[in-house]
Amino acid sequence: MNHIGETMSVYDKLKEKNITLAAPATPAAAYVMYVQTGNLVFVSGHIAKNADGSVNTGILGRDKTTEQGQDAARSVAIDLIGTLQEACGGDLLRVKRIVKVMSLVASTPDYNEQHLVTNGCSELIGEIFGDAGKHARSAFGVASLPRGTCVEIELIAEIA
Amino acid sequence: MNHIGETMSVYDKLKEKNITLAAPATPAAAYVMYVQTGNLVFVSGHIAKNADGSVNTGILGRDKTTEQGQDAARSVAIDLIGTLQEACGGDLLRVKRIVKVMSLVASTPDYNEQHLVTNGCSELIGEIFGDAGKHARSAFGVASLPRGTCVEIELIAEIA
Amino acid sequence: MNHIGETMSVYDKLKEKNITLAAPATPAAAYVMYVQTGNLVFVSGHIAKNADGSVNTGILGRDKTTEQGQDAARSVAIDLIGTLQEACGGDLLRVKRIVKVMSLVASTPDYNEQHLVTNGCSELIGEIFGDAGKHARSAFGVASLPRGTCVEIELIAEIA
Repeated sequence: MNHIGETMSVYDKLKEKNITLAAPATPAAAYVMYVQTGNLVFVSGHIAKNADGSVNTGILGRDKTTEQGQDAARSVAIDLIGTLQEACGGDLLRVKRIVKVMSLVASTPDYNEQHLVTNGCSELIGEIFGDAGKHARSAFGVASLPRGTCVEIELIAEIA
Repeated sequence: MNHIGETMSVYDKLKEKNITLAAPATPAAAYVMYVQTGNLVFVSGHIAKNADGSVNTGILGRDKTTEQGQDAARSVAIDLIGTLQEACGGDLLRVKRIVKVMSLVASTPDYNEQHLVTNGCSELIGEIFGDAGKHARSAFGVASLPRGTCVEIELIAEIA
Repeated sequence: MNHIGETMSVYDKLKEKNITLAAPATPAAAYVMYVQTGNLVFVSGHIAKNADGSVNTGILGRDKTTEQGQDAARSVAIDLIGTLQEACGGDLLRVKRIVKVMSLVASTPDYNEQHLVTNGCSELIGEIFGDAGKHARSAFGVASLPRGTCVEIELIAEIA
């Protein structure tokens, strides 16, 4: 499939998965949700939330299973895509490439499946954006996260 | 206020706050304090120091309060701006945008106010640079930091 | 020495150090090992491995000495350079600058020599790439890493 064919189907894929994008959250502090410089958009770290909007808290290896972490990472991906849509002036078809994902997983010293947790985000991005969704990535275990969230993810994208 | 008006007042704002910028510190290891590529400057992680130049050590949630962490983050912001000034050949008016801040806060597993700590940095940047200081950001809790510092912050800026 | 003279000697320096570059590892998850956008290559976090290909596990301050951590960081640098070579279509002479290194060191709360561990990577990059190897850097202690590795490092490079 050509580049245009792929990007044209982003919204079809979101619909197919029954995903509704939300407007970006208000930053919890003195920053903004994304900044564009040249063709790159730097999206701020987004924290995991529950369906009711409350913070999805916990530490992997203590309070959460890997599967629960994956669900959290998937929910963050949806929020990241929502912010990215706003960064694109409402049109995700302008996303040329998801360049890089950095995923922070609140972890005990002996928990070591941060890569599997982060797949919850990476796989959704791959499904939605196709080849344009193939991204570089770092995933690691942090001591703790703002507001006690279990997962925080940031993203760099190239847009047209 | 227009873009030029804003950037012209960076030095006035520093003076108003009685902030004197220092020359960049010598790296503690085999790297440099910043690298420019295209219009982007990547500034290395800067650690928090005390007024006497010693390392500001401690772990949030164990040795330091959130307010002390904010003061540390503010001091790092001043050092980052000093390095950025050197990256701009001595002229901060060339800063078009603070693109991204990454803030590492040494934290216990149950400390979750890294976003408030990091505001010590983000708010100063906003006050000094105005609209050009509105940055994307990630803040998180790390197990520990080089030389035992409580806060380490890195920055990406776009310069003219 | 001029820029061309420097970059031409990258392979001589690798040979001198008896370093053989390997093809990039298969990602352990749903991502790719690098993405190029404009002249920048974002290389994914690479984890430390033993000579037999198994994961080099452990936590600094508990299971590993600083010197062992440095060896691990050096081995990661070799793998990063191997991936970078592939990103350059097989020709490392196209590397204009190693822009930025981010180094994650699995650490206890009281371990604070992450900068020394990371020198194992930074010094090798400096030796191989000369002036083009002088990079910005952040190094910090994380709670734990994917598959239990002791060190994970990612890199941004500018290529011609």
